[in-house]
Amino acid sequence: MQHFLTTADWSRSRLQSILDDARDLKAEPYQARLRNKTIALIFFNPSLRTRSSFDIGAHQLGAHAVVLEPGKGSWPMEFELGSVMDQNAEEHVREAARVLSRYCDLIAVRAFPKFQDWSVDRQDKIIHAFAEHATVPVINMETITHPCQELALMLTLQERLGMVDGMKFVLTWTYHPKPLNTAVANSALMIAAKFGMDVTLLCPNEDYRLDERYMGLAQEYTSSQGRSLTVTHNIEEAYSGAHVVYAKSWGALPYFGRWDEEKPVRDAHKHFIVDAEKMALTDNAFFSHCLPCRRNVKVTDEVIDGPNSLVIEEAENRLHVQKALMSELITP
Amino acid sequence: MQHFLTTADWSRSRLQSILDDARDLKAEPYQARLRNKTIALIFFNPSLRTRSSFDIGAHQLGAHAVVLEPGKGSWPMEFELGSVMDQNAEEHVREAARVLSRYCDLIAVRAFPKFQDWSVDRQDKIIHAFAEHATVPVINMETITHPCQELALMLTLQERLGMVDGMKFVLTWTYHPKPLNTAVANSALMIAAKFGMDVTLLCPNEDYRLDERYMGLAQEYTSSQGRSLTVTHNIEEAYSGAHVVYAKSWGALPYFGRWDEEKPVRDAHKHFIVDAEKMALTDNAFFSHCLPCRRNVKVTDEVIDGPNSLVIEEAENRLHVQKALMSELITP
Amino acid sequence: MQHFLTTADWSRSRLQSILDDARDLKAEPYQARLRNKTIALIFFNPSLRTRSSFDIGAHQLGAHAVVLEPGKGSWPMEFELGSVMDQNAEEHVREAARVLSRYCDLIAVRAFPKFQDWSVDRQDKIIHAFAEHATVPVINMETITHPCQELALMLTLQERLGMVDGMKFVLTWTYHPKPLNTAVANSALMIAAKFGMDVTLLCPNEDYRLDERYMGLAQEYTSSQGRSLTVTHNIEEAYSGAHVVYAKSWGALPYFGRWDEEKPVRDAHKHFIVDAEKMALTDNAFFSHCLPCRRNVKVTDEVIDGPNSLVIEEAENRLHVQKALMSELITP
Repeated sequence: MQHFLTTADWSRSRLQSILDDARDLKAEPYQARLRNKTIALIFFNPSLRTRSSFDIGAHQLGAHAVVLEPGKGSWPMEFELGSVMDQNAEEHVREAARVLSRYCDLIAVRAFPKFQDWSVDRQDKIIHAFAEHATVPVINMETITHPCQELALMLTLQERLGMVDGMKFVLTWTYHPKPLNTAVANSALMIAAKFGMDVTLLCPNEDYRLDERYMGLAQEYTSSQGRSLTVTHNIEEAYSGAHVVYAKSWGALPYFGRWDEEKPVRDAHKHFIVDAEKMALTDNAFFSHCLPCRRNVKVTDEVIDGPNSLVIEEAENRLHVQKALMSELITP
Repeated sequence: MQHFLTTADWSRSRLQSILDDARDLKAEPYQARLRNKTIALIFFNPSLRTRSSFDIGAHQLGAHAVVLEPGKGSWPMEFELGSVMDQNAEEHVREAARVLSRYCDLIAVRAFPKFQDWSVDRQDKIIHAFAEHATVPVINMETITHPCQELALMLTLQERLGMVDGMKFVLTWTYHPKPLNTAVANSALMIAAKFGMDVTLLCPNEDYRLDERYMGLAQEYTSSQGRSLTVTHNIEEAYSGAHVVYAKSWGALPYFGRWDEEKPVRDAHKHFIVDAEKMALTDNAFFSHCLPCRRNVKVTDEVIDGPNSLVIEEAENRLHVQKALMSELITP
Repeated sequence: MQHFLTTADWSRSRLQSILDDARDLKAEPYQARLRNKTIALIFFNPSLRTRSSFDIGAHQLGAHAVVLEPGKGSWPMEFELGSVMDQNAEEHVREAARVLSRYCDLIAVRAFPKFQDWSVDRQDKIIHAFAEHATVPVINMETITHPCQELALMLTLQERLGMVDGMKFVLTWTYHPKPLNTAVANSALMIAAKFGMDVTLLCPNEDYRLDERYMGLAQEYTSSQGRSLTVTHNIEEAYSGAHVVYAKSWGALPYFGRWDEEKPVRDAHKHFIVDAEKMALTDNAFFSHCLPCRRNVKVTDEVIDGPNSLVIEEAENRLHVQKALMSELITP
């Protein structure tokens, strides 16, 4: 039995075999591979694509999905072992995970950071607690990384570009009125690096570097394949010659939990928006973003609606890669 | 591909063929017509009948439904093209509709008016935005009209009365402690007129006339078939000789968004309640209402529980007409 | 047609036949007994196990479940007949139950007490209103009793102990920071008594006796089978020689709705926690609890994680007994 918590635990070749299967499933969506199987989808945070694509994907494979929302439709939950549960939480993850493992064949969990203390959030306790206590496979539906989005992104790139080795992938920070999760940024960095791209991280200043864990993995992936990882704050340098521009906003880790202090810095970088002028510097690059996306804040209508925009394809591919993933985990 | 946004876009004969099919589906509920199809049900507002009848109806046809609630389980949404999305909305309908169109074969949307400015609400932007951006059929599950309720009402009347041409249909305003949506009132007016009934609108005073758009359509439908549309504030005149009494409360459009000013007017008309005394003036009329219904405020227990009450039949028929409708839109 | 509102309405032998069928279904979970059937699950309160086990159980039998949450995704509801509905409730249970009976083959309801006035709560109006107005079977998914939990508990005990007649069952009150529903306590008392166990109720003082209705039933069940019902406040006496220790917290009925006054009493009895020292007094007793369970408040990690803990088995068995129950009610 294996979990899918982060792509860091999976080799490039195993990930590629999931992508290959996803392509098959895209061509032939209804396959009763998971007949008489049940999937639990646990959302601690909102979702549109993830919720519907997992639910529909399970159904297309003959399985049945149930959606649970702890703290809303379900009980608030405790994650620490040994704690004295005299506060708000009514249920310990140890029971929830073990009971759901009796009812279901797979548990998928979305649990965003709390945004108060990065040293706590970076431990990713909720998904790890489920993985520790569950006796069935656990899938990460976004915590501090978003590995399903990684698979969707890479499938989309391979559909348009074939093998992407050596191509220039730019992950650009963009403005957003609120400090956001670094999950998709961490993930984009890792998957582009893992699949042999030359990766450039464009951000306003050094405070917007991603966590050393993900920077280190990206460095390791690129170095070992003779590729490069570059961090720059220079927009022109970043976009120049790019094959793929991937946009995402995130909050600066040094200001974590003290967002009022970061606000002026973010507000000063609204010009990081992806627009046609910047895209003109690239090698006719594809543009993508994970959705939901604030139009005319992160990217102009012109770019997101343009012929090189992959946002809808990437969102569609969530369905296909997740089906391949569920299939791999439940019936390896 | 065709949407079902309002019955105004559909001919009487096409609507009749849906009603005919609904009768077949009522006799034989399980037919795998929509096997391997998926339906997205998007609720911006609460629902009991609509949610369960669409979900169950889809299942009975072999399809799978997913329920999404933007702003609750899903992301808050933007509907204007070209807007700079720096406020609350995280997702633009353009992405949501296109992505769901990749996952699903039909999108159904419930989006009530905001009740602040009728000149805005009457544009019915949300459902039209979904219809514009989706690449699959869109069904209106109640916005400023409620076309599925229209089909259910007409099927119920035809089951009891056969063809209803020339029969007297009374839409009576009733009291309700809050100003309500005009959707079902607009819809009742349109469908009764479209199917050749003599239509009487009974309301407290001229302020409670419905929007000119729906008054105009009802006038056009009745005139072209040699029938009449009458507006009256006289209870006795309205009920006299009626074959069908349909009750609904709604807020007066001239007071839209300034409900405190309307309150005394509404409060002065609690006697518009449908009761046995009024029903005695009719030609043994059937009574109906769309549900949910406040008992002993809009209608007395005696009438709603009486032998001529069609409320449960009409609610049941929601299931059958919606199945016929989904079937027609997905596999025309 | 029969409802399942409380086990008090069902004979021991009929309950046993449900348990026997549950064992068969546990061995062979997928049986298309309820093909083309639909189940409505109505939650007025949160749920994890109940919601997922009913949904999954229905699916495993070939049926389809829809989840409704009045007041959240659905309309607030009125339960009194004859009321003038000019307050918050938009829908009367009489309509909701009759309409759902047209859409579905079974209605299951969770409705906790309001915790303001026990003389009101003990009437259990919501579930009885559904049972009165529905034209399909109604299942109690926890109100002031929790009969599905009773079945799961008894199946679990029989799996470990065979027939339990004459064995010592201890229901122990435990501390909890909030006053809780007596439902599971009432239920544990009834089912252990009904199946011929010697029942001991351990609680801090006379104020924590359960309602006379359930005390009376337990007395009747035990007396008629030559067994005993004992109430004690002495921990050592209760645990001594026990074969089963079942833990639950509940609020003291004499303080109902005036919980601030009860708080010091509860706070003074934190030592009622189930721990290894107390369990050592038993005849190697099994421990169980209905979940969710506050660890190290109601029971120590050592006991709940120990080899004699049945909590996960009992929770799993919810699935199996509920499938047998749905099967019995829909296709008797």
